[in-house]
Formats: sequence, C-alpha cells, structure tokens
Amino acid sequence: MTNDLFSALAHPVRRRIVERLALGSTTVGVATSHLGLSKPTISRHLGVLEESGLVRRRVSGREHHLTLDVEALSVPYEWLSQQRDIWERMFDAVEDQLRSSGVTRD
Amino acid sequence: MTNDLFSALAHPVRRRIVERLALGSTTVGVATSHLGLSKPTISRHLGVLEESGLVRRRVSGREHHLTLDVEALSVPYEWLSQQRDIWERMFDAVEDQLRSSGVTRD
Repeated sequence: MTNDLFSALAHPVRRRIVERLALGSTTVGVATSHLGLSKPTISRHLGVLEESGLVRRRVSGREHHLTLDVEALSVPYEWLSQQRDIWERMFDAVEDQLRSSGVTRD
Repeated sequence: MTNDLFSALAHPVRRRIVERLALGSTTVGVATSHLGLSKPTISRHLGVLEESGLVRRRVSGREHHLTLDVEALSVPYEWLSQQRDIWERMFDAVEDQLRSSGVTRD
C-alpha cells in the first residue's frame, strides 16, 4: 500500500495534480488543464492516483469531480516523520554521550 | 530530484534499509543482512538509495559504511507536510464559511 503511495507521488505531473487538489475538490478539467498534456496522458496519471487511494473521483452527469484523500497522503507523511524522529533521537543520544565523555565541548 | 526521492522510497526493501539507517550509520552488512537478499539485489537497491542522495557510502578498507542523509529525507517530508497544511487550511475555511452561512451547526 505504502509502495503505491510513494510510487504515485514519484511523478511530477501527479504531484502537480495533488497540489491542485490540496486547494480543494474540483473537476478533472480544472485540476489538469494547466498541465498542457493530452487526455490519454492525464487519464493514465489520474488512474495511478486513484489506484493508490490518493484521489477519489465522483461522476455527476458529464462532470468528473476529483477529491484528494488526505488520509492516504498521511501514510507516507507519517512514515517519513517517524524516520526523522528516530534519526534525531539517535543523533541527540550520540551527542549527549560524546559530551558526557568529554569528547565535545558545550 | 524529488522524483528520485519518492521513487527511491517506493520499494519496501529500500524503506527497510532507511529504517535501519535512521537508527545510526552502520556497515552494509549490518544494514542489510536481516533482509535475506542476494548481494546483487542489495547492491541494486543501495545504488538507487545512493543516487537519490538518501544514503551516503564511505569506504574504509574492506568496510563500507552507510549513512542516512536526513536532509534528503526532508525533501519529500516537507512537500507532504505542505500539501497537508494547505488542505487543512482550505478545509477549515470551507467549514467556517458554511458555519457563518448557517448551513452547519457548531
């Protein structure tokens, strides 16, 4: 699952779409027209985003509305946050140890 | 650049290596032996991590030491954090507007 989320975000076009949808739900047209890409290319990228769970599509007549799923965005965010926290705690612990053994100065 | 970082993190083996290195720099052996993978497979994954800038390798005699670059880890983290913040601000703004127009109750 997390794989799909990181892979889905590994393409700049898909990140541009996510950035637009972070501003609010909108139609496929509004979310993607500024990208200047062909419809098949847009469809392919939207397919990847939908499969990953990052984007949901609601069809209303002829309009397709896209919504960002911020919970899905939280999965890679939380993982990265956790690794940074662990790294920082380990770094602080090593610094404290060096300081108490007199290797570094305050 | 950010592409490479998201792509590098899109594989579970590479995330396991990053998780190990978040605990501190160590040798290739210590960082990867628990994964039960062949040397060529490990080399390929380490190559992707090094190319992305997430991992640095220092060769000392026969030992190869790996270090996590927490600054590189911050690039996708900051991007995700930003999208979440934007989404939450927009969500709050819409809620406020609905509340002030009497559509929702406090």
